[in-house]
Amino acid sequence: MKIDSVDVYYLSMPQVLDIGDGSQDALLVRVAAGEHVGWGECEASPLVSIASLICPMSHSACKPVIASVLGQEINEASDIRRIGDLVRANSLDLLQADHTLSGIDIALWDLLGRRLNEPVWKLLGYKKCFAKMPYASVLFGSDADETLSKAKTIIAQGFRAAKFGWGPFGLSSVEDDCAQLVAAREGLGDEGVLLVDAGTVWNADVEAARKRLKILKEVRATWLEEPFVSGALSEYHALSLESGPVGLAGGEGCHNFHMAKHMVDHAGLKYVQIDAGRIGGISIAKDVADYAAAKGAIYVNHTFTSNLALSASLQPFAGLESHTICEFPTELKSLASAMTKNHIAPDENGLLHVPDAPGLGIEPDLEGIAPYLVEVEIQVRGKRVYITPPLR
Amino acid sequence: MKIDSVDVYYLSMPQVLDIGDGSQDALLVRVAAGEHVGWGECEASPLVSIASLICPMSHSACKPVIASVLGQEINEASDIRRIGDLVRANSLDLLQADHTLSGIDIALWDLLGRRLNEPVWKLLGYKKCFAKMPYASVLFGSDADETLSKAKTIIAQGFRAAKFGWGPFGLSSVEDDCAQLVAAREGLGDEGVLLVDAGTVWNADVEAARKRLKILKEVRATWLEEPFVSGALSEYHALSLESGPVGLAGGEGCHNFHMAKHMVDHAGLKYVQIDAGRIGGISIAKDVADYAAAKGAIYVNHTFTSNLALSASLQPFAGLESHTICEFPTELKSLASAMTKNHIAPDENGLLHVPDAPGLGIEPDLEGIAPYLVEVEIQVRGKRVYITPPLR
Repeated sequence: MKIDSVDVYYLSMPQVLDIGDGSQDALLVRVAAGEHVGWGECEASPLVSIASLICPMSHSACKPVIASVLGQEINEASDIRRIGDLVRANSLDLLQADHTLSGIDIALWDLLGRRLNEPVWKLLGYKKCFAKMPYASVLFGSDADETLSKAKTIIAQGFRAAKFGWGPFGLSSVEDDCAQLVAAREGLGDEGVLLVDAGTVWNADVEAARKRLKILKEVRATWLEEPFVSGALSEYHALSLESGPVGLAGGEGCHNFHMAKHMVDHAGLKYVQIDAGRIGGISIAKDVADYAAAKGAIYVNHTFTSNLALSASLQPFAGLESHTICEFPTELKSLASAMTKNHIAPDENGLLHVPDAPGLGIEPDLEGIAPYLVEVEIQVRGKRVYITPPLR
Repeated sequence: MKIDSVDVYYLSMPQVLDIGDGSQDALLVRVAAGEHVGWGECEASPLVSIASLICPMSHSACKPVIASVLGQEINEASDIRRIGDLVRANSLDLLQADHTLSGIDIALWDLLGRRLNEPVWKLLGYKKCFAKMPYASVLFGSDADETLSKAKTIIAQGFRAAKFGWGPFGLSSVEDDCAQLVAAREGLGDEGVLLVDAGTVWNADVEAARKRLKILKEVRATWLEEPFVSGALSEYHALSLESGPVGLAGGEGCHNFHMAKHMVDHAGLKYVQIDAGRIGGISIAKDVADYAAAKGAIYVNHTFTSNLALSASLQPFAGLESHTICEFPTELKSLASAMTKNHIAPDENGLLHVPDAPGLGIEPDLEGIAPYLVEVEIQVRGKRVYITPPLR
């Protein structure tokens, strides 16, 4: 069975705000082979990923992503690996390619699961899948009062854990950050799991991060996420030596297996956070989950968009019983909810279940999507190389 | 003085061949501030870098690159650093951004050098610049005979060193690779410096690389370049323990300082090869040169395009006297020669000199470029967001 088409759809809120909310746009991917279809999603900058899909070749190791996908056989799991390897070799010098491949890889797993009538996690080799404890992922309030109120709401919604990130945190004074953290802890109560996301705000400045360690310990934060950019291995490692019970978390910026491996090997991470929509899809995310499990690190999904992306991000560690924490964005823009007919929600115990259905178990809602579709046209030398395809 | 405009021009040969020749297209960057202009070049996939320059914002850490450049003050070297930091923060989740920033950073150094009437290497803090020994960088022949002939030609042209790469090497049998290497050594004579580029052909397969070590030692290769993809640190390191006098070289795929640092720290590299058009421009390339020098590794430029890119790639290590080897592509397509009015060529002793002129010391040839200009138009929601600007 050959891959007949790869269609990508740029979706966006009518207005994108200058805030750390990744659910404001999306690049939806549809792959078809014979009568079978699978859906995926690429993280961030849809227009750039579209360009990388269809750009003219620069040289033999800088081909458009689609050149390594269209016409390929897709019959079993090993085909997805082969196609990914082809893209990585043929688009070696095309930096954006890993993000673009991610959505295609996810769609291929969905397609294969639907065709074989198995959930993706089974195709990945897991015998059983385990419920996860979702944390509500929200932005810090603009001040401590707003953060307190957000935390209380999250607990009232039945969550046991919450992650506060971005917003003013790390940019304002240490005192302001303390007030934010104390408010978050107060709102969650003694039992709530408190996670903190610095959003790379200190870049590679260990001293700036160090100043917040005392209060992070006092409010019993389970983790401090992304004090630094992905790749600042020695800075992460230096901080990890002093962070004590506050585990360091990071890795969302990794766009290949090697980068994630380095974060596990050299950065002193306790939690490695992988976005299946960036790292090269479910295939590479599963490689990282295996590696983390073998090395005693804990795998966590990074997800900030639709439930399609959420299901994709849960599959790679669905069968790892002791890797329980999972990211569950709860402040999604309407686009991200409208994208799918069915949704993943915590059960009465506050636990999240990977869909027990073929493929990713998520149905795109083509009617729901339609109002958010962004028409794009790209012409090169007067010839149209991309136009938004019809939704089908 | 504020940055008034950032114009990018997609240039290409009429036909791009499926070979490992990066000189077949280019993205030329023009930055203007007041009456001052600077020129730069981004490596690979021009259309994708154009998209990343002007794409709609996805969220606060995924902005188009131009958003962090236009309107910024550019008066001294520290401004270039500040602008680069802004791009890295504001386009954190835009994978292609590092390549796009590279061309802009190069253009900013050129602009500042022209304005201050100083060559870029002086602005980088070097007191003196040193001649480099260029190696002719060519593709392996399709068979050993062709490689022999290429090697003889290179020596006849006055070069003391040659690098053979890509083509069939590493993909065919060990015997065929041996024949290629023996031919290269024969053609160069006993004194010629022989460098070998595997072009990541073995991905992360140490065993495949190991099979070629014996013959590489026999033909006295100075280095084996990119046996593996950038980031395969442990694989590089494993091979380095057995490669003896054959130094490992790599790093061209690095798109930020951290990745290059890891290659120096963890991969057992003797030579770290940096493409200023990928790693974030001259600024980050200089950081890597400083780091390599401090750690006892040798910095080498990676360059496969025009003489504008070549000058940019020489500046970061112009003042490092003992880092003598430099890449000098000699099989450029006509586009790459036509791009500039003046050219960098070895002197009568076969040595290369960084231009002793303001900025990068290279003048774009707008008339020469014109036939290669690729017209691009991108529309989003029916609104034109990019059209090839007039050459000026």
